[in-house]
Amino acid sequence: MQSKIYHFPVQIYYEDTDHSGVVYHPNFLKYCERAREHVIDSNRLARLWNEKGLGFAVYKANMIFQDGVLFSEVCDLRTSYKLDGKYKTLWRQEIWRPNATKPAVIADIEMVCMDKDKRLQPIPEEVLEAMI
Amino acid sequence: MQSKIYHFPVQIYYEDTDHSGVVYHPNFLKYCERAREHVIDSNRLARLWNEKGLGFAVYKANMIFQDGVLFSEVCDLRTSYKLDGKYKTLWRQEIWRPNATKPAVIADIEMVCMDKDKRLQPIPEEVLEAMI
Amino acid sequence: MQSKIYHFPVQIYYEDTDHSGVVYHPNFLKYCERAREHVIDSNRLARLWNEKGLGFAVYKANMIFQDGVLFSEVCDLRTSYKLDGKYKTLWRQEIWRPNATKPAVIADIEMVCMDKDKRLQPIPEEVLEAMI
Amino acid sequence: MQSKIYHFPVQIYYEDTDHSGVVYHPNFLKYCERAREHVIDSNRLARLWNEKGLGFAVYKANMIFQDGVLFSEVCDLRTSYKLDGKYKTLWRQEIWRPNATKPAVIADIEMVCMDKDKRLQPIPEEVLEAMI
Repeated sequence: MQSKIYHFPVQIYYEDTDHSGVVYHPNFLKYCERAREHVIDSNRLARLWNEKGLGFAVYKANMIFQDGVLFSEVCDLRTSYKLDGKYKTLWRQEIWRPNATKPAVIADIEMVCMDKDKRLQPIPEEVLEAMI
Repeated sequence: MQSKIYHFPVQIYYEDTDHSGVVYHPNFLKYCERAREHVIDSNRLARLWNEKGLGFAVYKANMIFQDGVLFSEVCDLRTSYKLDGKYKTLWRQEIWRPNATKPAVIADIEMVCMDKDKRLQPIPEEVLEAMI
Repeated sequence: MQSKIYHFPVQIYYEDTDHSGVVYHPNFLKYCERAREHVIDSNRLARLWNEKGLGFAVYKANMIFQDGVLFSEVCDLRTSYKLDGKYKTLWRQEIWRPNATKPAVIADIEMVCMDKDKRLQPIPEEVLEAMI
Repeated sequence: MQSKIYHFPVQIYYEDTDHSGVVYHPNFLKYCERAREHVIDSNRLARLWNEKGLGFAVYKANMIFQDGVLFSEVCDLRTSYKLDGKYKTLWRQEIWRPNATKPAVIADIEMVCMDKDKRLQPIPEEVLEAMI
């Protein structure tokens, strides 16, 4: 079951653009990660890492880049997800420019939970509860 | 005359840290730039660049790194500035961790205005007015 | 017809890692772009942009992240491509850690040529000739 | 006593530039760090970190930005250093564009050695020996 849509603003600074005048494409993956952290809660992520040695890792990322994004624009990053078994979360994330009629970028992200030895771990209960 | 102090929050994401566990030091220069953009106003910066071919460039940066900053912390970036003649602005920027008694990073930044041919230009009136 | 495989070394610096101890995943997209630039030739890319206003943009990126990559490792980035009609190039790019038996990251990238107004353009003859 | 000058090439990719058309200034700090790693030896750095919990941290950075650097340029990063007591190393690093008559960027960097608890440590013998 797909979650509700979370909205996260992303302002485009100098650091985000390249000499072609638009956002450098790998940066969209960064914005997606920032937004996911806000859904899961950054403090919870820090605590899980420090106390239990658990972290989240992107296993797959499928992206479509449909439009360039310009300096100083404030985009709306729309995130939803669903759980897929005990080990996997599937995220749909879209970056919308102001007043756009379609997303500039669409990302489908598969994320798993791992311990510090890079072994797959079930998604922790407290995350599941926060996410459902 | 030093301006008032502007406050800008900076949340530390995965992208900001390195394998030593703290923020990778060049990133503090990025945060400083983000904060300056908010003082000057990003839309004004975009317009000046697109319509008049004017931009701001850092000419000097003197930085002291006094403390490491951790994942998930939300820092307070404190910015003030003064004008130095028609061509130069001097910025004092400090990154404060939550509950800190001294800044983690202190940056003194000298910024100038340039046209697209990299020639020094006087700071535009509309920026001066906004900054005073 | 798939091209030969081009090899490009990528050394992992502090800037590449995050606090979990491995390479921050969006950075792999950066390495892929560096490697493609070396296949096409950076000077040719600069000239096409400056003289003809033509650039390349990633339209799709499908990535699988199979293994973490550590600080100080020198990876082998293996790149091959094929042309798909007049407008599209399809790239297979793999990041191999030293002594690995499978790639740490696999990326399938679709790249198109565009002018400065973001209109699709046929891939320039000189690029086709260099790439065939 | 100032060391000899080490030369390290830096090629400017899309990722390095911003929408103003030149290298985004915080990136020069990244290049300086890459070059220092090559002077000290990345494998030694990894070993010191993993086996002894020792790392290097920038304490001060004073930078002058004298010229913009363009996409596709291959710069010469010139690094020299001197030891200053048991705890400190002072680095002079300059980024030279092709055929330039002065450095585009000059950086004076003060670097110290720290353990994982961020306590100052004397520079390890094996680093001193490699650096002298």
